Amino acid sequence: MWQSLLAQLGSGDQRALARTLSFVENGIPGYRELLAALRWPAGVHVTGITGPPGAGKSTLTDGLIGALVDAGKKVAVLCVDPSSPFNLGAVLGDRIRMSRWYTHPSVFIRSLATRGSMGGLHPRIIELTDVLRAAGFDHVLVETVGVGQSEIEVAGLADTTVVVLVPEAGDEVQTMKAGLMEIADIFVVNKSDRPDAAVFIRNLRQMLAPAFSQHREEIPILATVAHEGKGLGELADAINRHGASHRYPARRSWLLAEKAWQLILQQRMQGLSHESLRAAIDAVPPEEFQLYRFVEEIMSRES
Amino acid sequence: MWQSLLAQLGSGDQRALARTLSFVENGIPGYRELLAALRWPAGVHVTGITGPPGAGKSTLTDGLIGALVDAGKKVAVLCVDPSSPFNLGAVLGDRIRMSRWYTHPSVFIRSLATRGSMGGLHPRIIELTDVLRAAGFDHVLVETVGVGQSEIEVAGLADTTVVVLVPEAGDEVQTMKAGLMEIADIFVVNKSDRPDAAVFIRNLRQMLAPAFSQHREEIPILATVAHEGKGLGELADAINRHGASHRYPARRSWLLAEKAWQLILQQRMQGLSHESLRAAIDAVPPEEFQLYRFVEEIMSRES
Repeated sequence: MWQSLLAQLGSGDQRALARTLSFVENGIPGYRELLAALRWPAGVHVTGITGPPGAGKSTLTDGLIGALVDAGKKVAVLCVDPSSPFNLGAVLGDRIRMSRWYTHPSVFIRSLATRGSMGGLHPRIIELTDVLRAAGFDHVLVETVGVGQSEIEVAGLADTTVVVLVPEAGDEVQTMKAGLMEIADIFVVNKSDRPDAAVFIRNLRQMLAPAFSQHREEIPILATVAHEGKGLGELADAINRHGASHRYPARRSWLLAEKAWQLILQQRMQGLSHESLRAAIDAVPPEEFQLYRFVEEIMSRES
Repeated sequence: MWQSLLAQLGSGDQRALARTLSFVENGIPGYRELLAALRWPAGVHVTGITGPPGAGKSTLTDGLIGALVDAGKKVAVLCVDPSSPFNLGAVLGDRIRMSRWYTHPSVFIRSLATRGSMGGLHPRIIELTDVLRAAGFDHVLVETVGVGQSEIEVAGLADTTVVVLVPEAGDEVQTMKAGLMEIADIFVVNKSDRPDAAVFIRNLRQMLAPAFSQHREEIPILATVAHEGKGLGELADAINRHGASHRYPARRSWLLAEKAWQLILQQRMQGLSHESLRAAIDAVPPEEFQLYRFVEEIMSRES
């Protein structure tokens, strides 16, 4: 099963790709072997796009797809933002605009259910990103809503993380979540035609100044008006430049180690649930129960 | 090593017992085998004594030792309460009173360091209790301070849990920690010569009424004045009666399953640390890193 899915992966058959993603998403037996067998070329670029709800991430993603496709690139999008028009709950205008990508031969879009309405990453987001890396795309865009831990997790899987903000009252930059500050490789100030935009950008630049001096490399701040298509080519360029710089987020190996640990733990603890342990404990008369003998028996039963 | 410790365990040699406890407490290689090899007679009775700081648990434990020894029993005490006079920081009077037990042939006392000044159980408290069970005592008393999770954990290892309270302003019963309510097999209202004692006991009884009707068995409430030796014989009787009833706390199997899970996990993840994983990840060029191939390699390297 997984071998035939793998064989089709580079073929450009979008229905075969959709089947492979479902296979992995649902954890059908063989998915681990499939994932371990994936190979991808060095040039595939994964970009995480995150930020608070209402920042216009989806419109920006839509425009970014356009800029990349215009440059002759093949683009895959994973959408983990429940409020994104890519992810159903769309207003009519957005739906019509975005619908062109669903039939475009160079674009593949996949929406993922999240665990809660507040966002949070899909539990197999790294896995699904890896499938897309190996499926012949030049760019993989992962759109997530920047709430909870998800924006930090996304920095573990993306080569470049774009944090999208909107100009609000100048003060609000001060209260921007520390998590978003830490992970940004590129800042986008969207809806930059709003009157407060210039002040907002200046405040953001000031706020980032200590970080700049520390890293000695300026984090780009781009102004966009996504719904008018302004600034999107510059964003595509900035993403490509960052990709070519081969700078990786500091948290990346920590997050990947965490994920690897969980995967190894899952495999090693397979077949053992808290409930089954409890049932086995209840089956022993309490006055005879001996914890270490019990553990020894469980371990020997399985080896 | 552990075989010779085990062989001496039933001999009544207190120094050999102290060595065995240190062996287990410090997790010296062989301690798991020792623990798995432990056997104990059906009649050994483990009593947890817990309650808020200042309730007089140590004085009560001291008096309880006396009542049990008078009845011809051999008693071991594990003290995990950092504020207990058994555990060093004693006022002089307590020290002198309790010191008689340190040389008494029927009594063995061991103090354990806790992880923090706020109490909390020792990480190997179940293990150490099991050693004492197998060392020829009739009773094992475990004194813990009832803060944090420790009072709930203690219900996983004790056959009988005694919750010690003191009469305070009548209202305070209402704010008694729910954890203490749930685990008590016996309530002791110590310092019951205080003027508020009768009101306090009546309030406690009223508060427990719904629980009584649910379990159909009344939880005894005993009044003691530990420093005058009042009510201690009655407490010993209540503990023995509860022991003979073979009722075990509802949380017991849940807590033991949790502990068993941790022990199995520890063994199965042996030799694998987050740090070592991270170092291995950092050793791979980021653009070549592939999570599932990495996990597969780690797993195969170790099997």
